[in-house]
Amino acid sequence: MNKKVKPYLITRSLQPENQESPIHFIKNMETPLHYFYRRNHFPYPVLNQYNYWLQVAVGQSKKRYIHLSELLAMPATTLTVPLECAGNKRAKFSTKVYGEQWEDGAISQGEWTGVPLRNLLKDTELTMEAQEIVFEGADRGKKPGNEGLVPYKRSLPLEKALHPDTLVAYKYNNKPLTVKHGHPFRLIVPNWYAMASVKWLQKIEIIKHKFTGPFQTEDYMYYPNKNNNQEKVPVTTLNVNSTIQQPLNYSILNSGTHKVEGIAWTGQGKIKEVQVSFDNGQTWTKANLSSNGDSVYSWIHWSLVCEFNNKGEYTILSRAVDSSGRVQPHTPFWNRKGYGFNAVSTVHVKVE
Amino acid sequence: MNKKVKPYLITRSLQPENQESPIHFIKNMETPLHYFYRRNHFPYPVLNQYNYWLQVAVGQSKKRYIHLSELLAMPATTLTVPLECAGNKRAKFSTKVYGEQWEDGAISQGEWTGVPLRNLLKDTELTMEAQEIVFEGADRGKKPGNEGLVPYKRSLPLEKALHPDTLVAYKYNNKPLTVKHGHPFRLIVPNWYAMASVKWLQKIEIIKHKFTGPFQTEDYMYYPNKNNNQEKVPVTTLNVNSTIQQPLNYSILNSGTHKVEGIAWTGQGKIKEVQVSFDNGQTWTKANLSSNGDSVYSWIHWSLVCEFNNKGEYTILSRAVDSSGRVQPHTPFWNRKGYGFNAVSTVHVKVE
Repeated sequence: MNKKVKPYLITRSLQPENQESPIHFIKNMETPLHYFYRRNHFPYPVLNQYNYWLQVAVGQSKKRYIHLSELLAMPATTLTVPLECAGNKRAKFSTKVYGEQWEDGAISQGEWTGVPLRNLLKDTELTMEAQEIVFEGADRGKKPGNEGLVPYKRSLPLEKALHPDTLVAYKYNNKPLTVKHGHPFRLIVPNWYAMASVKWLQKIEIIKHKFTGPFQTEDYMYYPNKNNNQEKVPVTTLNVNSTIQQPLNYSILNSGTHKVEGIAWTGQGKIKEVQVSFDNGQTWTKANLSSNGDSVYSWIHWSLVCEFNNKGEYTILSRAVDSSGRVQPHTPFWNRKGYGFNAVSTVHVKVE
Repeated sequence: MNKKVKPYLITRSLQPENQESPIHFIKNMETPLHYFYRRNHFPYPVLNQYNYWLQVAVGQSKKRYIHLSELLAMPATTLTVPLECAGNKRAKFSTKVYGEQWEDGAISQGEWTGVPLRNLLKDTELTMEAQEIVFEGADRGKKPGNEGLVPYKRSLPLEKALHPDTLVAYKYNNKPLTVKHGHPFRLIVPNWYAMASVKWLQKIEIIKHKFTGPFQTEDYMYYPNKNNNQEKVPVTTLNVNSTIQQPLNYSILNSGTHKVEGIAWTGQGKIKEVQVSFDNGQTWTKANLSSNGDSVYSWIHWSLVCEFNNKGEYTILSRAVDSSGRVQPHTPFWNRKGYGFNAVSTVHVKVE
């Protein structure tokens, strides 16, 4: 008799598929593949043998092709990297914004194996006045305000693209990438929000100007104003952030000892400290941090054991501080498309 | 290559298991078992052969036992009945309440097959000044404010217990009940919130007083006041209610034609009308109702095709009216434990 109790992905939409990870129940440092969040702009691409060839172009003219088998023959790098959707926690803005109503689970982390992008490029391809590298996925579809089918396309500045940890990855947790996560290969851009980590990577183009596709200059921009596009800024580096995994929001606890625990991550340096407050931020207590081993990029687990001896309602806050001095703000930075939410994590509980 | 896209249950808690149905994606009149919401107060009971005997007692003394095989040999009734958790939509109270933060999916519906409870009771058992019948499940556990292990126990007034459609059910959608839903048999109480439909039914006791167990007089009561227990009223009949399944809240739509659709249900009579408003309730349009066939209790599907020709933000409201004249209120009836939410269903969309 099947009584196994397990969490599932949380469905945000099915066409295209957008489902979040049950992050409050994920204790692993490497999220199992079936609990990895799924984020799509379009239907899944229908792949054929051409998709196993990666096209590298300089401008519009010179093209060459690298086959998956060539990638596999090259020295590989394996890194533990979290991917976080830029819209993670969008549902938490109190002045609501439209788009997928992600709660805490548009983030997952695991081991990515692939070839550093820089090792795929030839010196001759970079000697021009190269400014950016554009990455195109095999996924495409209709997008309001654009004609025809729009491919998913993003660029990176040269220095980020050529960083030794920017990978063309073909394995996740030591298994071949699955179609839902970019099979046969995808970009992995550590420290940036995951819109940069283009799935089903098909074409790489070195350009000498700034790329202006709709996923670069319409979406994935912070628009601070509700009614105009002024002061818009591109979404790039992960904000310093933390999530309280347990206890759950608005849960009812027995009086006694409970563990407050969660994860924390940043795109700039490492997590230096996670602080917990029980008095709305007047005083903060340091949480215990688990080691993230040798991993430069991975989230860390944190926890704090506390006594709830008196019945009543409590608010628990967590905030992370990173080694570059950034700290989660009390008030979120509101922006019209709802990216980069990283206000202090808040959980309300009642002790009975 | 597995690209099948499907929704999953939405996890609210794992200990005990509380997961809601992905109701926004359920088009069936009979919810498939794996999409039926799961609601537990305690860990799943460990069953043995004694659990296949149903104990019927008069007061504390006279007891007899009915085996599952005897139930199976009796004439059976099959009914399509929705079960809705009393806490369904609890997350929607704007003054938040504690407890499982159910959104729209703590409701599911299907075909229940079983024996009318009245056919299991002997006339001699009902000749005393019988007032209520108490139902005890095999599930038990700790409950704040109570000593030892508390069994899940609820009562029904005699007239409800003896209604010909109050069943001891052993099949769901024509298959044996599974452990997660009350195997080997459970009570099905049409028209009442689902706390009455006791799972893993073990004991039935006919009593001549009012039952006062904690799941009868502490939980499943409407407490209208935040700080005291005055004016509390028991949760019984389902409120008239509707849910907008599509479009999803805060979704971004292309301009053009869209179908607004959902479900509606009531515990008092039948759904007479579902109305949709696009101007915050100043004017209402009748939605088209699907037939629910011969079923007296089942929810109905409703839909309305509409044109969104202008870009901008829209609020869509739905409200159901039942044949007893009840209509969903604009403002929810707030109560401290968050039961019976049935304010008009609201969805915000942006047309681009």
